[in-house]
Amino acid sequence: MKRIAIDMDEVMADTIHKSLLVFNERFDKHVTRENLTGTKLDHLFPHLKEEIYQMYNHPDFFRDLPVIENCRETILELSEHYEIMIATAAMEVPESFRAKYEWLKENFDFLNDNYFVFCGDKSVIEADYLIDDNIYQLDSFKHQGILYTAAHNINEEYDVRCNNWLEIKKYLMDSLSHV
Amino acid sequence: MKRIAIDMDEVMADTIHKSLLVFNERFDKHVTRENLTGTKLDHLFPHLKEEIYQMYNHPDFFRDLPVIENCRETILELSEHYEIMIATAAMEVPESFRAKYEWLKENFDFLNDNYFVFCGDKSVIEADYLIDDNIYQLDSFKHQGILYTAAHNINEEYDVRCNNWLEIKKYLMDSLSHV
Repeated sequence: MKRIAIDMDEVMADTIHKSLLVFNERFDKHVTRENLTGTKLDHLFPHLKEEIYQMYNHPDFFRDLPVIENCRETILELSEHYEIMIATAAMEVPESFRAKYEWLKENFDFLNDNYFVFCGDKSVIEADYLIDDNIYQLDSFKHQGILYTAAHNINEEYDVRCNNWLEIKKYLMDSLSHV
Repeated sequence: MKRIAIDMDEVMADTIHKSLLVFNERFDKHVTRENLTGTKLDHLFPHLKEEIYQMYNHPDFFRDLPVIENCRETILELSEHYEIMIATAAMEVPESFRAKYEWLKENFDFLNDNYFVFCGDKSVIEADYLIDDNIYQLDSFKHQGILYTAAHNINEEYDVRCNNWLEIKKYLMDSLSHV
């Protein structure tokens, strides 16, 4: 059985939804998803970089993120054909370990936590596919990357891009029949 | 540069030292390291299995373990020749994430936390070597395993076994010159 590694933030979890809610309220701003096209919050507000980092590194930030549309159903279906592994760059925000773990257990109760990986650089991951929104992670991964579209990566080039979970399902189910 | 993945418990950290201290005090026992030859605490005391698990899964258990002799110096020296990655089965004890992270940062301040991996099954690890005291982890790892001797594995067979960090240094420095 081939193995798919899946990033959490902006792939499984709608991190942007909550970060805009918290950021706009805390700093009295009106940033929208559209404002984040081709960029990230800390690039738009470099003088608030440390505050933005502390927002993400808060022990509860990741606990209640919405699940991205069709993600749960697709991973459940894919898990009949592939080994599923979750690979999240939690070392960047070490206060988040527990919230990320609990979020996964709550929203993806069918997954085996023996295949949850909290890491930094994803070159450490042994899998056949990696679904991620960060090109730099896909570039250091040794096998087939799948770029998951997020506002910040919309202008970047990558050979396999999926815009939503239905496209991921199609790509990975088609890949099965090509073996 | 080749990459070495290193397990924490009973390889870098003297988990047994603290578990005997805590267990003997809590249950008024006198278990010694010698009593653990070829076995583990929860096999010796199956009726206390849940209590033993809760001892390990306590948020502070892993925070103050002693570093095993010659481990720090050897990893520092190896880090000039190999990429060093820490791979710990933290998913078994999810309350331990923070303590394990802080222990690594405190005792191995020269390591890059981008290469810390908190996982379950170590088949998910991409590295050239894995140093581990658990045969079942080495068996699922795809590249060269190195069994680190611990009381519980003393009667098991494995092709590469090291009894201490000086033997690990010799094996891995010799491996460099064989390339």
